[in-house]
Amino acid sequence: MRLEDLQDPAEIKGYSKKELLELSKDIRSFLIERLSVTGGHLGPNLGVVELTVALHYLFDSPKDKFIWDVGHQAYVHKILTGRANQFDTLRKFKGLCGFPKRNESEHDVWETGHSSTSLSAAMGMAAARDIKGTDESVVAVIGDGALTGGMAFEALNHIGHEQTDLIVILNDNEMSIAPNVGALHSVLGRLRTAGKYNRAKDEIESFIKKIPAVGGKLASTAEKFKDSMKYMVIPGVFFEELGFTYLGPVDGHDMDDLMDTLKYAKKTKGPVLIHLLTKKGKGYEPAENDAKGTWHGLGPYKIESGEVVTKPGPPSYSGVFAKTLIKKAKADKRIVGITAAMPGGTKLDAFGAEFPDRMFDVGIAEQHATTMAGGMATQGLKPVFAVYSTFLQRGYDQLVHDICRQNLNVVFAIDRAGLVGADGETHQGVFDIAYLRHLPNMTILNPKDENELQNMLHTALEYNDGPIAVRYPRGNGYGVEMDEEFKTLPIGKWETLHEGTDGCILTFGTMIPVAEEAVKALEAEGLSVRIVNANSVKPMDVELLNKLAEEKIPVMTIEETALQGGFGSAVLEHFNVYGYHEVEVRRLGIPDEYIEHGDVPKLLDEIGLNAETVISQLLELVPAKQKRA
Amino acid sequence: MRLEDLQDPAEIKGYSKKELLELSKDIRSFLIERLSVTGGHLGPNLGVVELTVALHYLFDSPKDKFIWDVGHQAYVHKILTGRANQFDTLRKFKGLCGFPKRNESEHDVWETGHSSTSLSAAMGMAAARDIKGTDESVVAVIGDGALTGGMAFEALNHIGHEQTDLIVILNDNEMSIAPNVGALHSVLGRLRTAGKYNRAKDEIESFIKKIPAVGGKLASTAEKFKDSMKYMVIPGVFFEELGFTYLGPVDGHDMDDLMDTLKYAKKTKGPVLIHLLTKKGKGYEPAENDAKGTWHGLGPYKIESGEVVTKPGPPSYSGVFAKTLIKKAKADKRIVGITAAMPGGTKLDAFGAEFPDRMFDVGIAEQHATTMAGGMATQGLKPVFAVYSTFLQRGYDQLVHDICRQNLNVVFAIDRAGLVGADGETHQGVFDIAYLRHLPNMTILNPKDENELQNMLHTALEYNDGPIAVRYPRGNGYGVEMDEEFKTLPIGKWETLHEGTDGCILTFGTMIPVAEEAVKALEAEGLSVRIVNANSVKPMDVELLNKLAEEKIPVMTIEETALQGGFGSAVLEHFNVYGYHEVEVRRLGIPDEYIEHGDVPKLLDEIGLNAETVISQLLELVPAKQKRA
Repeated sequence: MRLEDLQDPAEIKGYSKKELLELSKDIRSFLIERLSVTGGHLGPNLGVVELTVALHYLFDSPKDKFIWDVGHQAYVHKILTGRANQFDTLRKFKGLCGFPKRNESEHDVWETGHSSTSLSAAMGMAAARDIKGTDESVVAVIGDGALTGGMAFEALNHIGHEQTDLIVILNDNEMSIAPNVGALHSVLGRLRTAGKYNRAKDEIESFIKKIPAVGGKLASTAEKFKDSMKYMVIPGVFFEELGFTYLGPVDGHDMDDLMDTLKYAKKTKGPVLIHLLTKKGKGYEPAENDAKGTWHGLGPYKIESGEVVTKPGPPSYSGVFAKTLIKKAKADKRIVGITAAMPGGTKLDAFGAEFPDRMFDVGIAEQHATTMAGGMATQGLKPVFAVYSTFLQRGYDQLVHDICRQNLNVVFAIDRAGLVGADGETHQGVFDIAYLRHLPNMTILNPKDENELQNMLHTALEYNDGPIAVRYPRGNGYGVEMDEEFKTLPIGKWETLHEGTDGCILTFGTMIPVAEEAVKALEAEGLSVRIVNANSVKPMDVELLNKLAEEKIPVMTIEETALQGGFGSAVLEHFNVYGYHEVEVRRLGIPDEYIEHGDVPKLLDEIGLNAETVISQLLELVPAKQKRA
Repeated sequence: MRLEDLQDPAEIKGYSKKELLELSKDIRSFLIERLSVTGGHLGPNLGVVELTVALHYLFDSPKDKFIWDVGHQAYVHKILTGRANQFDTLRKFKGLCGFPKRNESEHDVWETGHSSTSLSAAMGMAAARDIKGTDESVVAVIGDGALTGGMAFEALNHIGHEQTDLIVILNDNEMSIAPNVGALHSVLGRLRTAGKYNRAKDEIESFIKKIPAVGGKLASTAEKFKDSMKYMVIPGVFFEELGFTYLGPVDGHDMDDLMDTLKYAKKTKGPVLIHLLTKKGKGYEPAENDAKGTWHGLGPYKIESGEVVTKPGPPSYSGVFAKTLIKKAKADKRIVGITAAMPGGTKLDAFGAEFPDRMFDVGIAEQHATTMAGGMATQGLKPVFAVYSTFLQRGYDQLVHDICRQNLNVVFAIDRAGLVGADGETHQGVFDIAYLRHLPNMTILNPKDENELQNMLHTALEYNDGPIAVRYPRGNGYGVEMDEEFKTLPIGKWETLHEGTDGCILTFGTMIPVAEEAVKALEAEGLSVRIVNANSVKPMDVELLNKLAEEKIPVMTIEETALQGGFGSAVLEHFNVYGYHEVEVRRLGIPDEYIEHGDVPKLLDEIGLNAETVISQLLELVPAKQKRA
């Protein structure tokens, strides 16, 4: 059978074991082949082929609920639920989403993208089932990396307390994206080598039974310890302590073991945790032997050679960030680097290689990372937390309560600010200005290119008046010339990139080329528009803004971030505070909606963040001013 | 010695055991007496008297760092560090803060207020020490309740992995604020009754040694299990698994045991967790016998009778919320209540008494609570998460990523919105409009009084188009007449409370009486100002706003929330989007700084959120318009 013909997962219920194994093999080939063209999350999906087949064989989706933590391992689930024929559109605009998506299929009951949410969602669904009196199963599949996120622990604690019937499948591949860290990782390591639950339990019981009575005393001691030993000397004690029945470890690529364990779990009362050992990239050698996380998610590759197709280009913003940090750290011993399980993505791995003692990978734990950085700052260090814009959302309260309130010198290197493209809604870095700008004591900078990034990071590390964020986009810079010596940039002073008298564009970062293109086109029509690099988002350039107002120059703001509460909104607030009620302002930015996946240029066209829109809006704005004058 | 004369904690280092006990007794009497007048967090502080004395006796603050999780148990520490003479100003404006405060004393090295941050801060400080090569001790004191917060687990996981030298004192009083929930609570319960670590470990070792060899087989089995048993059959296995040396349980009121354990911990390498059993309210009977959390934090009380001084008044907003929810839930089985360890504060305890199966207290776990509510909503329930404005900050990413993005029907009952007073900076509910307003699909309502609250909650529960927040202040309503039948309020339609033609105030909630007072005063001077109840903060009343603009009426917005990105900012954005560039708007609200503790009216005066300022600002705003006309 062609996978493209599979419409309903119920179709595989009649399969023999041989057919299920055949199906698994077909899915693997399908993934390796298709993703070599489109790119995508190959490694995680190759690791869950048998699991996903077994789940759909034993349970009845969508009545039974499968919740995929993080969600980039849901491709197999998508194939089994009638979406194989859409894989050529994977992660493309209007195409198949790289994560579970409720509007794609009734089998996607919960959407993910960020880590560690699945257990909470599962608890909510299971509690709803119990209140409604229905009988569906709820199964959450979570990786060992995602389990280090605090909210997963909050959920374990609550589920264990409530003793709700649900199944947690711990997909333990010893990786989050990069190799895993944390004490929990060691716990799992001990479990991996400890043998199976039932055997251990049986052995210790029979061992105790064999102990002969020695004058009564030993027997009574044995009796006394029997209960606690039975309880304690089992591999899954950590989870059993939290109220879960621990099953495993199970070989996640052994269909028989998988089926047996899932069947047992299905009939077990209360919460069950199945400890599944899987191999990321299973069945495709280059992905199996991947220590650096390259095959976690990637672009096109050559199947035979395992060669990843890379486009040569200017250095990436992340790369420039890391290089700059290393250079600075050589001269300043106070500098430390912090990542929440993203050493590769943030390029902080390079920093860690140079300064292993000053590098902290805390696991998927943005809350802890943020506050720990604060603790370091109180002791005179210069912590730099490199984090994606969308993931720093997890540290919002810590920013409000710990960092900004105590006005601590922490540098936030906010990577993937702005639209990120293929990952879509859950990963777009479009809210950070809105969620940071209202925090007292916070400074927010945004470079126009990779050279300004290095100078900005230098500036942030020299700054000693509180928290400071430097936000920069995903992808490559422009190949601009890099200053040999770092320059300290004046905070709260903007840079005029292009003179003009009829109007003024205030923008920063990725939108500067858009502004330049538009202004150039308008010059041909005789309009003279100024472009200002508003690289200091907070504080803003008060003098420049007031001068614009005094000169009655119409202002356009352009930002690749949410309009509500964003930079343009700050400009409105400024003119309002200073009493310039009559300045005309036009704001372009991300509208009040979530932006789906797709190529960034396509997405920008969709929401009108392109030269065409800037031109038409400027033509509306500027003549209006001229008419009045 | 009078406690007021104690200036430096080093002074107690020469004390005999008898003197230390005497000191503890004096501190207790001091607390009971002083707090009976000022109010404050009596229970938590009575529970840590011996601990705090022992810490200051054995360690050298401020060289050694003490970090108080949540921080309302730091009064004893304040007394021992020269602040006894300021206790008459406790939690009052410009007086002693109820939490650790760095600008009060060099002994306060980290500020707290929210739960579960201490371990991350401690890790940061200890890491800084190791990088700098100094040798101070770092001690975090955390309650068993705070340990349920996910970020505490993130920190445990990281600390255990790094094997950093630091001491965690788990202050286990079996309460967070109310009695504790969660599986971890059961873990601790088992530990409490399991006896001491060392004894258990010794006993099991000697037990194994005594096992006679039975044909070699049993002996070898014993050998095989010896290591794992030694490891497993100890009470603190949960923490040992995470890489901590577990010491305890220790009676937190036995000075000898405390000293011995702390000394041992001080010289132990790697992270140590001391499991301390304490009694909240120890030494004051009414507080010791407190099952409901009354004595956690309270106002003045009568020492002899233990009678809490209460002022009779109109029903509280929290009370009206709970009463309304119960009424609604009787008719609608889909309604469930969720709290993150605040059943008393939110009054959801009343709902739980009525509907135990539909009430979920998840522990201090706002992230989990938010996403779990989302899971419930996907299955057709109507979850209501009652949460303080400042604590919902912990659920920000879950709001962005899970609730708003999936547009789920979750009701957020945001209590303590606006200034809260005595708790100060860490608890002011002033950011929620700024952090919610930029989230797509979010609706935000704010009632003007307790009757509007009941109708608004009714409206929110009938609403089926996505997440909806109803925010209301701390404290009592006005005693207004309550509608017998709930009314459904139109979302996005405001209510004109007072007609006027010279200007218009747009405001909501607590600021309405302020506006009314000002407008009344101005009427005497011949000015006619309209007052609009802008109870729908998002979406706003488009028609009304546009009509104001068309009529060229100057607008004043007043909000008891952060100005940056707040309601007034939304009004500016509105006029900007609709092209009303010339409407004059004056915005009053919370400036871009943290607001300290003190009586709310005093704080409002400080920041100009009072009738006087409204009058003077209106007088500036309105003539300006008249001049132009």
